[in-house]
Amino acid sequence: MAATVASSTVSVTELARAAKAAARRLAAVPSATKDAALVAIADALEARLPEILEANARDLSAGRESGLSAALMDRLTLDAGRVRGIADGARAIAALPDPVGEVVDGGRLPNGLDFRKVRVPLGVIAVVYEARPNVTIDAAALCLKSGNAVLLRGSSSAAHSNAVLAGIAREAAEGAGLPAGSLALVGGGRESLTELAQLEGIVDLIIPRGGEGLKKAISAVARVPVIYAAAGNCHVFVDATADLGMAERIIVNAKVQRPGVCNAAETLLVHSSVAADFLPSALAALRERGVELRGDDRVRSIDSSVAVASESDWAEEFLALILAVRVVDSVDEAIEHVNRYGTGHSEAIVTNDRAAARAFQLGIDSACIYVNASTRFTDGGEFGMGAEIGNSTQKLHARGPIGLRELCSTRYLVDGEGQIRA
Amino acid sequence: MAATVASSTVSVTELARAAKAAARRLAAVPSATKDAALVAIADALEARLPEILEANARDLSAGRESGLSAALMDRLTLDAGRVRGIADGARAIAALPDPVGEVVDGGRLPNGLDFRKVRVPLGVIAVVYEARPNVTIDAAALCLKSGNAVLLRGSSSAAHSNAVLAGIAREAAEGAGLPAGSLALVGGGRESLTELAQLEGIVDLIIPRGGEGLKKAISAVARVPVIYAAAGNCHVFVDATADLGMAERIIVNAKVQRPGVCNAAETLLVHSSVAADFLPSALAALRERGVELRGDDRVRSIDSSVAVASESDWAEEFLALILAVRVVDSVDEAIEHVNRYGTGHSEAIVTNDRAAARAFQLGIDSACIYVNASTRFTDGGEFGMGAEIGNSTQKLHARGPIGLRELCSTRYLVDGEGQIRA
Repeated sequence: MAATVASSTVSVTELARAAKAAARRLAAVPSATKDAALVAIADALEARLPEILEANARDLSAGRESGLSAALMDRLTLDAGRVRGIADGARAIAALPDPVGEVVDGGRLPNGLDFRKVRVPLGVIAVVYEARPNVTIDAAALCLKSGNAVLLRGSSSAAHSNAVLAGIAREAAEGAGLPAGSLALVGGGRESLTELAQLEGIVDLIIPRGGEGLKKAISAVARVPVIYAAAGNCHVFVDATADLGMAERIIVNAKVQRPGVCNAAETLLVHSSVAADFLPSALAALRERGVELRGDDRVRSIDSSVAVASESDWAEEFLALILAVRVVDSVDEAIEHVNRYGTGHSEAIVTNDRAAARAFQLGIDSACIYVNASTRFTDGGEFGMGAEIGNSTQKLHARGPIGLRELCSTRYLVDGEGQIRA
Repeated sequence: MAATVASSTVSVTELARAAKAAARRLAAVPSATKDAALVAIADALEARLPEILEANARDLSAGRESGLSAALMDRLTLDAGRVRGIADGARAIAALPDPVGEVVDGGRLPNGLDFRKVRVPLGVIAVVYEARPNVTIDAAALCLKSGNAVLLRGSSSAAHSNAVLAGIAREAAEGAGLPAGSLALVGGGRESLTELAQLEGIVDLIIPRGGEGLKKAISAVARVPVIYAAAGNCHVFVDATADLGMAERIIVNAKVQRPGVCNAAETLLVHSSVAADFLPSALAALRERGVELRGDDRVRSIDSSVAVASESDWAEEFLALILAVRVVDSVDEAIEHVNRYGTGHSEAIVTNDRAAARAFQLGIDSACIYVNASTRFTDGGEFGMGAEIGNSTQKLHARGPIGLRELCSTRYLVDGEGQIRA
């Protein structure tokens, strides 16, 4: 049950209670103070680069000893450029509009009461993440900017880096006037994660950022609200009227531009009337970029070197250079396929047919539905939110990128002159 | 595991799967068809009054035999006037604006993509409720209007009434063009409730409307999202500068106008500088209306006939003519009391001091915070939402009255001309 903040040791529950007390004060802190705190964090990270790199070197050395994969080692690695990038990220979040206090609805009721529905912070947000130490600062900046206290729980592989990053951020934030307790790093093993996930009434939201293992571990024990960063089995559908050149550029971009992320495409659906025209060139372009192809019989009748897709391939989030390919006979069949096998993340149709575009956008139950654009745009930065803490495929509270507004709740403020109910 | 729809018997899971299929079609049904369906339900209820009363008589007779309390018998009872009221309620919901398709955000991104964030139905909503058979129609009308399929699970004490009401509603709705399966009544015992609450990916939301026992039963087993209708330990704070006549009218209204509901006041806080002026008259007015008073020492030093409040009284939702009363020395102390003992529902300050009003509204972490008005206004109808399915004190998704918009999710629709991500 041990937890680590810089060098002191306090229990998870104590840290969370302190965060709750800080959150009450933080909710009323003006934007200017919060922004100054984020800029102070950014400046301190750059000023204290040697400490950060020294701590990171210790994690990297431990990682080498324990045989971390090259990919994980890369995610773990900090250097001057990456630390500058992290600092610039915090400055960019400081420059965003403050969501707190935003009036999202309001009016005068027939009885003369004036009501406003205003955005308020959620309170205490716990972010649980894996190897990347940059999340320590990204998550802290987003939570603090939205007026929330933040409990950070990184992985043990980045323990030294995270401790130094969080320590620097905490000192800078408190120095700039944020309440003590607004930011804390939570350590400990699996049992401390369980403790955190069960602090009903204290922790207002947990956001796990990591793989399926982490999600399952939290889902099994959570009693506080959780928004799961999404799995994305995303689809691109090439309709009968598609511009085939555009369609090829979109599926290549959606599959290969960054295959390990949730908004990358995993399945290509092609209308049967253009399959013979489209597939030879598109599959060659994909193969050229190292994509392994798995298709149904109709795809394989056009290109016999495509492997046989199994039923499970349609439901798989490969997160790799693998693409499932299927021929369908109509936009309705495409919609049915996506609703059946998809995870509700991001889907795209390439078409020139207005009715097909509309049917696809209305008929598919996913967070983001594109016409003639790559699925890779589902991202808080791309959507103009400035930054995101993850992507949600759940339907309640936040669907799609989770930015500053999604880290808030609302409250009704009602002003009267003695109104009572008849 | 048996479930009852009118006279047929199907499993909960089968009903839910049928509802899921219906929901996909219902999401695209035009407002006019949905509105016509609600009006058809209202007309059919009035036309088939004798059937409804006959079924209700059977529930009432069983209730008498099993010794239901007078209050529960009253809630269970239907008559021509109440059925007309239920029908009018459905017509009023038909007349509300359709939340589906509403654009809540949108714009053009720097890369030329046009995005719209639009309201879409959640999908399948299960409403679990206790004795009142009118909820069968209220809940169905709100869910169908917002484009959601609805699974209704009433209590066994109203089984005959609910079966006839749901049967009439289903026939009328399907006759007016809503997809088969859009509305179903789920029967069975506790195990069918568990089955319902664990249908991940099929049931999109469960709303329990009932007492703490029901909430605990669902919370123990739920794997699908739940919005709990709220408990309300609501406060009225009479500040130093309050108009004392207004303050008395407000606390009397908040306490006695309808004591058994969640937005009724349970605790009165009074600033010490006006306690001696305010309390004698206010407590007399409350006592005259049958309110039992429980106070702290300072209250009892002003009126010794007030009973001693125990620590647990501050945290209690009495839902009865009982009021806890405490003297505090400042608005900050009042805020602290409310944040410590409240349930985050509705609170009121009576004051003429702008700074006190602002501090109270910013400092209290509740869904609705009133200045110079009764807490009893927290209600979808009063707030201009037309109707509500309950009140939420949770911070995610819906806080305050749950109306048509709160029964929806959102989706991003993004239109491009071949954009790919660099």
